[in-house]
Amino acid sequence: MYRTHTNGQLRAQNVGQEVTLAGWVQKTRDKGFMVWVDLRDRYGVTQLIFDAQRTQKSMMQQAQNLGREFVIQISGTVIERESKNPNMPTGDIEILVSKVIILNASLTPPFTIEDTTDGGEDLRMKYRYLDIRRNPVRENLIFRHKVSMAVRNYLSGQGFVDVETPYLIKSTPEGARDFVVPSRMNQGQFYALPQSPQTFKQLLMVGGLDKYFQIVKCFRDEDLRADRQPEFTQIDCEMAFVEQEDILNTFEGLTRHLLKEINGVSVGAFPRMQYDDAMRLYGNDKPDIRFAMEFGELNQVVKHKEFNVFNTAELVVGIAVPGANSFTRKEIDKLIDWVRRPQIGALGMVYCRCNDDGSFKSSVDKFYDQEDLAKWAETTGGKPGDLICVLSGQTNKVRAQLSALRMELAERLGLRKPDEFAPLWVVDFPLLELDEQTGNYHAMHHPFTSPKPGQMELLETSPGEVKANAYDLVLNGNEIGGGSIRIHDKQTQATMLKHLGFSEQEAKAQFGFLMDAFEYGAPPHGGIAFGLDRLVAILGGQETIRDFIAFPKNNSGRDVMIDAPAPLDDTQLTELHLKLDLQQ
Amino acid sequence: MYRTHTNGQLRAQNVGQEVTLAGWVQKTRDKGFMVWVDLRDRYGVTQLIFDAQRTQKSMMQQAQNLGREFVIQISGTVIERESKNPNMPTGDIEILVSKVIILNASLTPPFTIEDTTDGGEDLRMKYRYLDIRRNPVRENLIFRHKVSMAVRNYLSGQGFVDVETPYLIKSTPEGARDFVVPSRMNQGQFYALPQSPQTFKQLLMVGGLDKYFQIVKCFRDEDLRADRQPEFTQIDCEMAFVEQEDILNTFEGLTRHLLKEINGVSVGAFPRMQYDDAMRLYGNDKPDIRFAMEFGELNQVVKHKEFNVFNTAELVVGIAVPGANSFTRKEIDKLIDWVRRPQIGALGMVYCRCNDDGSFKSSVDKFYDQEDLAKWAETTGGKPGDLICVLSGQTNKVRAQLSALRMELAERLGLRKPDEFAPLWVVDFPLLELDEQTGNYHAMHHPFTSPKPGQMELLETSPGEVKANAYDLVLNGNEIGGGSIRIHDKQTQATMLKHLGFSEQEAKAQFGFLMDAFEYGAPPHGGIAFGLDRLVAILGGQETIRDFIAFPKNNSGRDVMIDAPAPLDDTQLTELHLKLDLQQ
Repeated sequence: MYRTHTNGQLRAQNVGQEVTLAGWVQKTRDKGFMVWVDLRDRYGVTQLIFDAQRTQKSMMQQAQNLGREFVIQISGTVIERESKNPNMPTGDIEILVSKVIILNASLTPPFTIEDTTDGGEDLRMKYRYLDIRRNPVRENLIFRHKVSMAVRNYLSGQGFVDVETPYLIKSTPEGARDFVVPSRMNQGQFYALPQSPQTFKQLLMVGGLDKYFQIVKCFRDEDLRADRQPEFTQIDCEMAFVEQEDILNTFEGLTRHLLKEINGVSVGAFPRMQYDDAMRLYGNDKPDIRFAMEFGELNQVVKHKEFNVFNTAELVVGIAVPGANSFTRKEIDKLIDWVRRPQIGALGMVYCRCNDDGSFKSSVDKFYDQEDLAKWAETTGGKPGDLICVLSGQTNKVRAQLSALRMELAERLGLRKPDEFAPLWVVDFPLLELDEQTGNYHAMHHPFTSPKPGQMELLETSPGEVKANAYDLVLNGNEIGGGSIRIHDKQTQATMLKHLGFSEQEAKAQFGFLMDAFEYGAPPHGGIAFGLDRLVAILGGQETIRDFIAFPKNNSGRDVMIDAPAPLDDTQLTELHLKLDLQQ
Repeated sequence: MYRTHTNGQLRAQNVGQEVTLAGWVQKTRDKGFMVWVDLRDRYGVTQLIFDAQRTQKSMMQQAQNLGREFVIQISGTVIERESKNPNMPTGDIEILVSKVIILNASLTPPFTIEDTTDGGEDLRMKYRYLDIRRNPVRENLIFRHKVSMAVRNYLSGQGFVDVETPYLIKSTPEGARDFVVPSRMNQGQFYALPQSPQTFKQLLMVGGLDKYFQIVKCFRDEDLRADRQPEFTQIDCEMAFVEQEDILNTFEGLTRHLLKEINGVSVGAFPRMQYDDAMRLYGNDKPDIRFAMEFGELNQVVKHKEFNVFNTAELVVGIAVPGANSFTRKEIDKLIDWVRRPQIGALGMVYCRCNDDGSFKSSVDKFYDQEDLAKWAETTGGKPGDLICVLSGQTNKVRAQLSALRMELAERLGLRKPDEFAPLWVVDFPLLELDEQTGNYHAMHHPFTSPKPGQMELLETSPGEVKANAYDLVLNGNEIGGGSIRIHDKQTQATMLKHLGFSEQEAKAQFGFLMDAFEYGAPPHGGIAFGLDRLVAILGGQETIRDFIAFPKNNSGRDVMIDAPAPLDDTQLTELHLKLDLQQ
């Protein structure tokens, strides 16, 4: 037994007790005749006291020589503090130390182990084990644990069964590249790591398990973007004998439970929005609806004047930014620079001030009079004091640009409140998505998603218009979950795969087992998967998933702490029947 | 909504209700004027009735044409059965069907979907999704879920934090081969899949997390033996500021909780046995102590007679098999054949009958008189009615042989009762194990296990005698968990690695990050890992882990259902900077 109590435990009522504590030296204050040491562990900090009158000289010296992050074990008596610290749970007491054992010394840590550290990202990742000692990082990991447990207990209580699906599976194209694993025992063959347990969870439904869930690692060998990880965690769920409505209700229940249990927030029925409306009103299929600033489409209002930019644009669209008429000319110019950055890519921005007296002042007053501008305000919902920002161009592009501007302005105006939660179902996604580079359609969700009833015929004539039984759960502008009702008969699945460009042979080789399964009494089924990393971050009021992963990889997919990946030795390669084929 | 109730739900009190059910056709009985259908889902079976008087003719025909495993949805009225079935929870009622919808047809399944099926192992694995529809398989998966949840909730309640450690890590030698994952983004480099999260959980302790657990997949690229899987699941745990005693108490608590909650069995304090005693008394480091048959070492008693086999043997050792004097001569001959099989490898077996009248009759009466044999009985604990079986030879070999015989006899005599649970801690394992082929020592547990205090010096002189702070938890003759107190200072770790044959450079390349971590205030720590697959099987009263894995692989490491592993196409290989190097 290294300790009788943790460092977060002792209170005034423990005064007089003999205790043994262990932990890390957070800091020492040495007044010569008196030394205080803050002893830290996961549970808190307890103040130790050594003083010349009551402490042996040798121990005083020992205390004076304790370095930061030394691991020590002490015994002593709990005494009342002379000056109490009401900001610390253990602030009423301190320990008059009678014995010190140094369990392990420490080099000076490369950054301070404080809530706000002086360590940069790279250094903290290399010494992640020290970073985890910092309260905010540790609390994030504990928070993640709490969310996982709440998910598991809720779903288990609803009759879902946690089933572990295999990690060594078969390479299947699900939109991203697979990580593969050479098989030593099966020469020249490879396993793949799952991008998701999609086909297995469907087979569990064919197997009659009825309700499945799993919190499971998934893998995608993608060129990493900021805040993407090659391995990530999914709350993966599937149900049999369900329609879309059943799934939405069940997982609205889960999400509401989490918001209540984790955040103490009660949320009413989640609003639902069609994909088309989300794109029209927010330029985005995961709108943040904590604030309005809905898009107003201005084509009817702005065309057929002398302003050619608008006349030639496919879409002219604006938002009324609340209270932003207070922006100075300089601030607005900066905003225009912001939308013209390559990451956003707008050619420019037209704006219109809504003055308090009801008049308007726009950057295109030459072309539009007060009456015109009043229509702008009407269409965008602009009120006196607002600033209307207008972008124009090709529909998809301009929507994405204005959506980015909307989010940026909301951020600047403090409208994205981390403790406010606005969930939203986005439904009726298109089944297929046009790849503008190749001209081919591919599955927007995945090849197992079912089209809306009666829309199969449209596949031949207008594939882009077919709607799917697919839905996303959006929270505060982030997609936290997505799913669909699946195809459950062989013929429909075969037709889908044909439309996605699979030859009959390819379809059989890759998904033959699933289509075979559909011939033996597959029930109607559907499901959803939540991105746990992001869900946890958002519930924690943050948006960087890396802060909620114990050992994340960097943007090159490297773990800089353990220095992986790394070269293999030749014996291993030979055993795996492989040779390197390096490119210069 | 496909159903108002499940097929396990309706009771007499529901009579008169209009209900909608969905599920699989288990069987139909057609009497011409009356058709009964058993409708099955995960929750149970409900009987449907169609009769010529009350059912439309077209629907009668529909019912008559329903095939096995068709998926149907029906509506109808709950009525009381004329002849109730007390063996079925829903046996008081049946449904008078008013509407049938066939949701999906089914081909005739390749084996019967019954508790006892006519399908062989291979067929059931290929159609695992149909196998899972059978009650025993499904119940095993649900049982596993219950065990996992109980583990999680118990550990979470004890302050353990579930932390996900990475799957894409670095190849490190932990006794078995790693599965590796080529990195596309880092040319010529590879990740490895973890054999266990060992180093990460230690780093979490260095990081101050104090108590960690995770239910996690681990991977070993071994030549598969029966009932081994290339991917398996571990309950992985680690604690800081603990001694061996703390770990044993904590996980004895977990195991006792599981036995109580899952099996309804109360178990007292777990006995503890030293490794050396386990080997001496049971020839085995995971003895089944549900029954006695302890080894009696007979060297003192049998030597220096005319029987040369015993005189030249390093060890002569016997067990008294309770009540086995009833074995016929033929049965005993068969037993002798059994120990002489190559899998066991004994050269022969000497036996001695303990007659009811107190006399003895042995197979070596020529060499040993009644007085000698009485000493055999005394040493092995043989009582009238028992049969003493004696093996001899080289110590390690003969122990293994007699241990196998002991288990086999216990099995035959019904002493291995699946509903009886006898946990046991085996402690004080050797630190190192001699590899008899190479003459080198390697870590018995792993290179991070600490030697017992004060034994480091022995490493130089008698490495085989050094005892470790290592322990196994044994349940009913199976190792269900094992762990150790770890090394937590850099110097000891470096010495250990040197003794295990790592050059300084290799040690730094593979474990440098861990040894660096030990320099920044690593606390004393230790842990344990349970094999979840085996634990679940044993708690379920079975020993085949494959029966508790949803999608197991066969003995060649193949998933025969999805047909993995499989060849990659050349594009993928090129992207991964690899070429095949196939051997003929």
